[in-house]
Amino acid sequence: MKSKLILSIALLLASLSSFSPANPIKIVFFGDSITQAGVSKTGYITQMQGMLAAQGIGDKYELIGAGIGGNKIYDLYLRHEDDLLAKKPNITVIYIGINDVWHKTSSRTGTDADKFERFYNALIKKIQSAGSQVVICTPTLIGERFDSTNENDGDLNRYSEIIRRIAKNNNCALIDLRKAFLSFEQNNNPENKESGILTSDRVHLNEAGNKFLAETMWSVLKDIK
Amino acid sequence: MKSKLILSIALLLASLSSFSPANPIKIVFFGDSITQAGVSKTGYITQMQGMLAAQGIGDKYELIGAGIGGNKIYDLYLRHEDDLLAKKPNITVIYIGINDVWHKTSSRTGTDADKFERFYNALIKKIQSAGSQVVICTPTLIGERFDSTNENDGDLNRYSEIIRRIAKNNNCALIDLRKAFLSFEQNNNPENKESGILTSDRVHLNEAGNKFLAETMWSVLKDIK
Amino acid sequence: MKSKLILSIALLLASLSSFSPANPIKIVFFGDSITQAGVSKTGYITQMQGMLAAQGIGDKYELIGAGIGGNKIYDLYLRHEDDLLAKKPNITVIYIGINDVWHKTSSRTGTDADKFERFYNALIKKIQSAGSQVVICTPTLIGERFDSTNENDGDLNRYSEIIRRIAKNNNCALIDLRKAFLSFEQNNNPENKESGILTSDRVHLNEAGNKFLAETMWSVLKDIK
Amino acid sequence: MKSKLILSIALLLASLSSFSPANPIKIVFFGDSITQAGVSKTGYITQMQGMLAAQGIGDKYELIGAGIGGNKIYDLYLRHEDDLLAKKPNITVIYIGINDVWHKTSSRTGTDADKFERFYNALIKKIQSAGSQVVICTPTLIGERFDSTNENDGDLNRYSEIIRRIAKNNNCALIDLRKAFLSFEQNNNPENKESGILTSDRVHLNEAGNKFLAETMWSVLKDIK
Repeated sequence: MKSKLILSIALLLASLSSFSPANPIKIVFFGDSITQAGVSKTGYITQMQGMLAAQGIGDKYELIGAGIGGNKIYDLYLRHEDDLLAKKPNITVIYIGINDVWHKTSSRTGTDADKFERFYNALIKKIQSAGSQVVICTPTLIGERFDSTNENDGDLNRYSEIIRRIAKNNNCALIDLRKAFLSFEQNNNPENKESGILTSDRVHLNEAGNKFLAETMWSVLKDIK
Repeated sequence: MKSKLILSIALLLASLSSFSPANPIKIVFFGDSITQAGVSKTGYITQMQGMLAAQGIGDKYELIGAGIGGNKIYDLYLRHEDDLLAKKPNITVIYIGINDVWHKTSSRTGTDADKFERFYNALIKKIQSAGSQVVICTPTLIGERFDSTNENDGDLNRYSEIIRRIAKNNNCALIDLRKAFLSFEQNNNPENKESGILTSDRVHLNEAGNKFLAETMWSVLKDIK
Repeated sequence: MKSKLILSIALLLASLSSFSPANPIKIVFFGDSITQAGVSKTGYITQMQGMLAAQGIGDKYELIGAGIGGNKIYDLYLRHEDDLLAKKPNITVIYIGINDVWHKTSSRTGTDADKFERFYNALIKKIQSAGSQVVICTPTLIGERFDSTNENDGDLNRYSEIIRRIAKNNNCALIDLRKAFLSFEQNNNPENKESGILTSDRVHLNEAGNKFLAETMWSVLKDIK
Repeated sequence: MKSKLILSIALLLASLSSFSPANPIKIVFFGDSITQAGVSKTGYITQMQGMLAAQGIGDKYELIGAGIGGNKIYDLYLRHEDDLLAKKPNITVIYIGINDVWHKTSSRTGTDADKFERFYNALIKKIQSAGSQVVICTPTLIGERFDSTNENDGDLNRYSEIIRRIAKNNNCALIDLRKAFLSFEQNNNPENKESGILTSDRVHLNEAGNKFLAETMWSVLKDIK
């Protein structure tokens, strides 16, 4: 009798952990076109799922993409209730800022630095109030040249500084993508090319870029409780 | 006895209409620097109050300014709860759009036309849901030349078209400031000057501009029930 | 004897005027991508040649294109010796200005109004000193909407005013393309479309646009002595 | 008698070289507002003259400023005959490029990189053909933050790369001001301030900036034969 009970409990536990975890940790990635593409076959969210599965922890997490092309910080603010909070995330990863800088030069509709920070703070407060952890990211690349000769580098570096300060002020974990990607370029872009290493077009990530993004993000996310 | 009663009633009515209206109609003007300056001594809100007082209806309305310099449509969206709805307006007058166009050329941080419309619609819905009438305005001027040679004229005309459509789609009354101001310039700016007629600096209104704005707005507002 | 001589002279003159004009009037069109495409099968220079041939005056004129895509006024100045004066034109038609305005919004590399005028004046002086007549044109379109809602309309109208003044100051004949094209749009673009009437892409002319351009230019050029 | 003659000649030569040099080396500085201000009391040209005088070689050089505020590379091309070649320089120092980058963001009238190089090459050829040595400079600063967070840093670095290539291609001596100024900021701007170290307003040089510029330029110019 006793051994039967023990066996039953063991089976129950096994089923809980391996097969049907009652409550996987739900991580929603909230961002722009890179996150929209993140759920495609080679996208970073799909690749991250593959990584977790390979480590045998695929069932512990539910990864959800919530990216829309062209989004800036204020677009996230506008749609955070419908597209983020409605999904009841345990962890929200905000990965935004490229368009806030890039649209300055592409369409004269970028975001002023002070308003970027104001909307970012307001967004974090709303998400934290709804009970989700918030993890934020510095922007990656607009141009892959590693020697600070890409036109938007000045602003990308500056908005990254702002995001680092926002993380500190709001007690958010930070994924410093900008730093990681610049370091990758310095080590792996010997010809100082504008694109083709991690991006297909200076901004949007190719398969290698999505892989590096998945790894860089996970190196921080794995330790979030 | 009877005459005493009649007198009492007369006094009561008088007090209601002339001295202490129980519920004046509260109009909040929600906008940018022009509205921020609207409550100054020669500002349009102050001048409108003077106009109403001269007509003996000063007590029927409470006029409140809620303008902040540099605001664009999405800034209004961000602060509409704290700065507008908290004031419990009966009528909200939204007068925004100049910076959405102007910042394209002044700081490369204007607002894309599609997002301008999206935020405007979302803002109107929030205000209408809170029980306030919404009246919206086309933008005035960036440069006073009347012959379509001001750099931002193309976009000002286009965003005015968008606002006219928004008014129709949301059943909002429209104050077509752009049309009124252009007409004024055609009739009163014989030298085709860039500034000095209704503005001090091509954008911000001088005393005459504030007066014309107050009159133009009131010509519509007086009929709002 | 005498009549034979007279006949010979008559024949000689006839041959000179009808068959092999010793000195056709050489017109060089100096401009940007529209002029570069002007010598293609449906381009405005090719169509103008067809018009002249149909009128039996094809031999009286030699029409030469000297357009390079992306050119602004200062690019014409840089290459006027090699690409224009070396061709020894009798008449030079300068058709420039679209990129000076457009590049402000497309790549932030437009031309300031005061420098536009300075380079234009300097260019005209160089060409006139070399013995060529100079005929100048206002710019055509960046967007075909006829109601002044195209983003660059303000500047196009302003730079057109500047060109009209330059024509007057330098005693140049003026081809007011802007005026002609706007008038055409008002009469032939009932749906207020952005492109597809005279242009393929808001700027570059389709076959109808090239035809209208050829006709509009010729209506002035035919009277230049 | 003979030795007296020799002595006389020796004295004559000495007087020529030390007191009234028949032919001082004429250096013309060709540039923008910084060079226009270079001849003011604390300007870099005035300070360089002071330096040379202190070294006892003030008479060996004639330093001439030819700067005009707002100039870009094509403005120098337009006025090189009247303002530069007419002065018959032995050495021409071209110090241009800040406005070519800055005007992109300040007024949308910067200079495309390819045209910047084309005009620069054309200008150098004209000056070299007129018999002057040409020395060229990379641009200094638009913002003094040393960590690549100034908005225009990307382009300033890129245009500096272009200028270094131009120097090589045209056998011109190079004064790498950008490199020198960035190095100065790294060592002397511990608070990473935007202005106030070498500039008064992020761009225009204060007295210390003019001094450092004079020294940096002279360190190269002293060896030009």
